Amino acid sequence: MTVFFWMKFQVHILGCGSALPTLLRNQSGQIININESEYMIDCGEGTQLMMRKLKKRFQKIATIFISHLHGDHYYGLMGYLSTLHLLGREKEMKIFAPKGLKEIIEVHQKHSNSYFRFPLTIIELESPRSELIYEDKKVNVYTVPLKHKIYCNGFLFKEKQRDRNILPEKIKEYSIPLIEIKNIKKGDDFKLPNGQIIKNSELTKDAPSPKSYAYCSDTSFNPDNANLLNGVNALYHEATFLEKDKDRAVYTKHSTAKEAGQMAKLVNAEKLIIGHFSARYTEFDALIDEAKSVFPSTIAAEDGITIEL
Amino acid sequence: MTVFFWMKFQVHILGCGSALPTLLRNQSGQIININESEYMIDCGEGTQLMMRKLKKRFQKIATIFISHLHGDHYYGLMGYLSTLHLLGREKEMKIFAPKGLKEIIEVHQKHSNSYFRFPLTIIELESPRSELIYEDKKVNVYTVPLKHKIYCNGFLFKEKQRDRNILPEKIKEYSIPLIEIKNIKKGDDFKLPNGQIIKNSELTKDAPSPKSYAYCSDTSFNPDNANLLNGVNALYHEATFLEKDKDRAVYTKHSTAKEAGQMAKLVNAEKLIIGHFSARYTEFDALIDEAKSVFPSTIAAEDGITIEL
Repeated sequence: MTVFFWMKFQVHILGCGSALPTLLRNQSGQIININESEYMIDCGEGTQLMMRKLKKRFQKIATIFISHLHGDHYYGLMGYLSTLHLLGREKEMKIFAPKGLKEIIEVHQKHSNSYFRFPLTIIELESPRSELIYEDKKVNVYTVPLKHKIYCNGFLFKEKQRDRNILPEKIKEYSIPLIEIKNIKKGDDFKLPNGQIIKNSELTKDAPSPKSYAYCSDTSFNPDNANLLNGVNALYHEATFLEKDKDRAVYTKHSTAKEAGQMAKLVNAEKLIIGHFSARYTEFDALIDEAKSVFPSTIAAEDGITIEL
Repeated sequence: MTVFFWMKFQVHILGCGSALPTLLRNQSGQIININESEYMIDCGEGTQLMMRKLKKRFQKIATIFISHLHGDHYYGLMGYLSTLHLLGREKEMKIFAPKGLKEIIEVHQKHSNSYFRFPLTIIELESPRSELIYEDKKVNVYTVPLKHKIYCNGFLFKEKQRDRNILPEKIKEYSIPLIEIKNIKKGDDFKLPNGQIIKNSELTKDAPSPKSYAYCSDTSFNPDNANLLNGVNALYHEATFLEKDKDRAVYTKHSTAKEAGQMAKLVNAEKLIIGHFSARYTEFDALIDEAKSVFPSTIAAEDGITIEL
């Protein structure tokens, strides 16, 4: 019965390369799985093919977050949406994206004389400040203002506090009926048929602490987000360049691996995941070493891997 | 010295699936190689990744032909063009496509605040009749009017008659200087220093007959093209459905494998290549058998294969 205590917070890396896709690292795309609710972040070209490779369920996703309108972060979106249509989707898809995506989709549809059979809701973002943009039972999602060549947001997924975990052996011991379980998980005591009160503390234990995940790509080093991201369990931060190519990082408004490490340190992250490496690098050890020199708990993203928070 | 008689006319299949990409068959894309000049036909999502897999040279292509503006035939185009830009391309790219592509590209560029460093010329097609749209030293390209849900062209590549092949042993025998070779290949006789005339027929042999290739996707069976395509060496014709699903073919304005065979027979093609199979079929034998029952010289396209004409 350990399933009662089981919780899932996974980051599936579909693509973690930069603008120039390679056979090793495709353009940006991630799926976040929070206890079987799935959310997509960015959707570079080829994202749907990666989903097929990883046997991800196409229709499971109901919300997509697009960081910015550089092609390597959204060129796979029209194809993915078209596939959902062809597969018969009926449920709504919600997309959060910078202003402009609606026009892009409309122009495609105008010239292909096509439509989506499912309701598509696009929420266009324009604010330069962090906002709570999405909420459901499991999670709050905030924008993370990034500093890039065009308007760009990262996303902070903050899991909500879960209900208390009821102890299975106590259900059996006190023959607790199903109908009472929900309230006990919310914190209620339980009254036995003979009137005796069993304290909630005897019946339950704390749920695991809620977790948080931040996606920061593409951006220059941006210490303004220190408070917003403080204590995040995992920070995905772009590390397009090495320090030796810092001039390119400055010019293109990207970060170096060292800066990614500095950001993780600054926000007291538990874990740093670096990605969005420039196609100029074919060996990634130097990038990882550079980030680790500042923040030891660093891993490198790879297409197809799953990171458990 | 057999290189003198060598000629190349290759069709590289980058993707030959239909709208729903699968791991076996990606969306439409082909590269035609005529004696080392390369042309792209259609550019579905993932085309550039397939080019990487096949080690095709990204910058070699100077002309792209887009059949129609359904996403599975052009969603990879923006990504491919962006990659060319990032790789430093300076030479012109020419694209022939239905009216609308220009607006699509402009909207993308507006919202990404980006541009291509190379000159991009888009020639938008609107005519319902076959036209000669492109010509260079090696080939003429004509549109092939197709019958689909939206305006759609196939493309007929007709190689030009090549110069005569000069016989290497005669160059040696008569010590023919390099400067004379071009004229001899055009049909001139050669005059020896002593005034003796060597007839062209002794010095050369006929070049191989020019070849032709037609790409017809997406379309219903369209006998109106019988004259235009008569005698084509290879016909690529879509075969989205089996006859048992003919109602879907009619409704979606696609062809069955049998109709592809009928078209090849009607135009006296030398070879039929069928593709654009619906993702509903996981075994392709039935499609091939159906086309072969009408036109025996049929092969099925597969992603990654090269067909020599």
